[in-house]
Amino acid sequence: MAAWSERELIKRISSACASAQAGVVKGIGDDCCEIALPSASLLLSTDTLVDDVHFNRDWHPPYLLGRKSVAVNLSDIAAMGGRPLFVLFSLCLPPELDQLWIDRWLDGAFAILHEFNTELIGGDTVRGSEIVITVTVLGRASPGGSIYRSGAEVGDSVWVSGCLGSAGAGLELLAADKGETTQWDQELQPLIDAHLNPVPRVQCGIELAQSGLLTAMQDISDGVATDLAHICQASGLAAVLIKDRLPALSGLASACRILDRDAEDFMLRSGEDYELLFTVKRGREKEFMAVMKEKKLHVYQIGEMRTGAGVFLETDRGREDISYQGYEHSL
Amino acid sequence: MAAWSERELIKRISSACASAQAGVVKGIGDDCCEIALPSASLLLSTDTLVDDVHFNRDWHPPYLLGRKSVAVNLSDIAAMGGRPLFVLFSLCLPPELDQLWIDRWLDGAFAILHEFNTELIGGDTVRGSEIVITVTVLGRASPGGSIYRSGAEVGDSVWVSGCLGSAGAGLELLAADKGETTQWDQELQPLIDAHLNPVPRVQCGIELAQSGLLTAMQDISDGVATDLAHICQASGLAAVLIKDRLPALSGLASACRILDRDAEDFMLRSGEDYELLFTVKRGREKEFMAVMKEKKLHVYQIGEMRTGAGVFLETDRGREDISYQGYEHSL
Repeated sequence: MAAWSERELIKRISSACASAQAGVVKGIGDDCCEIALPSASLLLSTDTLVDDVHFNRDWHPPYLLGRKSVAVNLSDIAAMGGRPLFVLFSLCLPPELDQLWIDRWLDGAFAILHEFNTELIGGDTVRGSEIVITVTVLGRASPGGSIYRSGAEVGDSVWVSGCLGSAGAGLELLAADKGETTQWDQELQPLIDAHLNPVPRVQCGIELAQSGLLTAMQDISDGVATDLAHICQASGLAAVLIKDRLPALSGLASACRILDRDAEDFMLRSGEDYELLFTVKRGREKEFMAVMKEKKLHVYQIGEMRTGAGVFLETDRGREDISYQGYEHSL
Repeated sequence: MAAWSERELIKRISSACASAQAGVVKGIGDDCCEIALPSASLLLSTDTLVDDVHFNRDWHPPYLLGRKSVAVNLSDIAAMGGRPLFVLFSLCLPPELDQLWIDRWLDGAFAILHEFNTELIGGDTVRGSEIVITVTVLGRASPGGSIYRSGAEVGDSVWVSGCLGSAGAGLELLAADKGETTQWDQELQPLIDAHLNPVPRVQCGIELAQSGLLTAMQDISDGVATDLAHICQASGLAAVLIKDRLPALSGLASACRILDRDAEDFMLRSGEDYELLFTVKRGREKEFMAVMKEKKLHVYQIGEMRTGAGVFLETDRGREDISYQGYEHSL
């Protein structure tokens, strides 16, 4: 194990940084980076991950954490229907941190940036007593207009882009296991992946915005009970979810047996699935499904917007208020 | 003393955030913020400050630290000749931190943003074991083109926008005093201010870029010996500084007597003055001085660009290589 060198780190980041590429006037190595963009609406978001708060190094391999640190930011751009363009990294790292850990983190971060045609254009590296990773992303808004949380109307249908509760169950499996298992059961592995290596739904978000049929959208970071409550609050409405319609991976039931937990709890209240949660214009569901089929996107209709306030779950027991039962929302 | 509440913090930040103002399509409260800008070159920079590494709470009042956290980022925009437009905050704060400290930090940050017509448009708040503050700034490049580090040519004159070594001496006075003095001697106070509350030279940078007479620029964050070495390296040249021309506040000599230190050392090797360091086209000095006089800007000619490599100091003892003798450079 070798402690990291700031000089080496900057060299590695600089060499992987965008320079003289499309839109980049000045890359890393000056007081600012400079980008030339045609007249456009731009999207900006920043997310910070702290060691032992947002990730656990006992079971989160640095390569996958590098991917996830970028992914959660790309997901914010996806949730507006935009296209990510550039990122900046701010890395606060303890002096004794292993250089190899940082190298693998960078490998993962650069890999996902490459996959999503997104360029690193600058950043900062500092020393601190714990790992604090801040990624800032700049994207271009959808040409047809961004999809906000505030646009839902009464009678709009509520949808998600993928299965719920996977990342939450994956995290609890990892925590219970304390990083001992290296090869997970085939059915459980997708839950583990959902936590360690979430895939931002960038292309899906772009297609959804371009369909012209969406009224509101956000990504699922705090659990659908909380995230849908944000859409309800921003749109001045209530929502009803149909319990039987909530999509889950087949492994979720197995994980719940192992953990002695309730699947509904994971699906509604656990965060970090990074799927897209959105509403489709009233009466346009069939048209929307035809577009999704053509684009080969799997989406799930899970509820409906109503007058009132709050998020309700409809089960065979009746209707229950589940508003804001996910994680506390941050900025 | 009351520990801070995330809900209160977000509420305070949100209420101070730009929304529906010029250029802001969507402020805080969605997955991203959205800004509409006409076709332009944009500048981006991010800087991170860590408790006990970049500041000391024993003597740095939170209000002034809030100002400084923003100022160091505005200074990066100034160093390109640009105009700051928007910032994002990422605040990593320990759970036990006093709410009052955060309130005063925010007061300072919002005050300087207001003074420089710059808007907060988003951010993130997280909990960690120490204070880590990341500010990201977005600015518009000078219409006439940004001033990079790489444009200096042989025979260009070297200038600074203000006195050198003030912040470094101020920091050492504070460190020696351990925050006991509340009222500093009139001559020393400007040194203290230079460390605690640096003023980013935004208007100066804009005027310098618009003069059409500059060839290279950066801000003095790591000491002129290191910062001028960056201009030399980027431009493929050497520079000679004339010791007798280096400008200093009158209090620097007094501080050096108190601290038993050498003024030259502070002027060349101490960082954080956040003055602008720049080069002016060969033979155009008089014309440049006339422009500065008209704009009421005080600037100081301190040296010249030469062929070769490295930064040299010319004194009555001869010529000495001082390249990179300031702080280690970060990204």
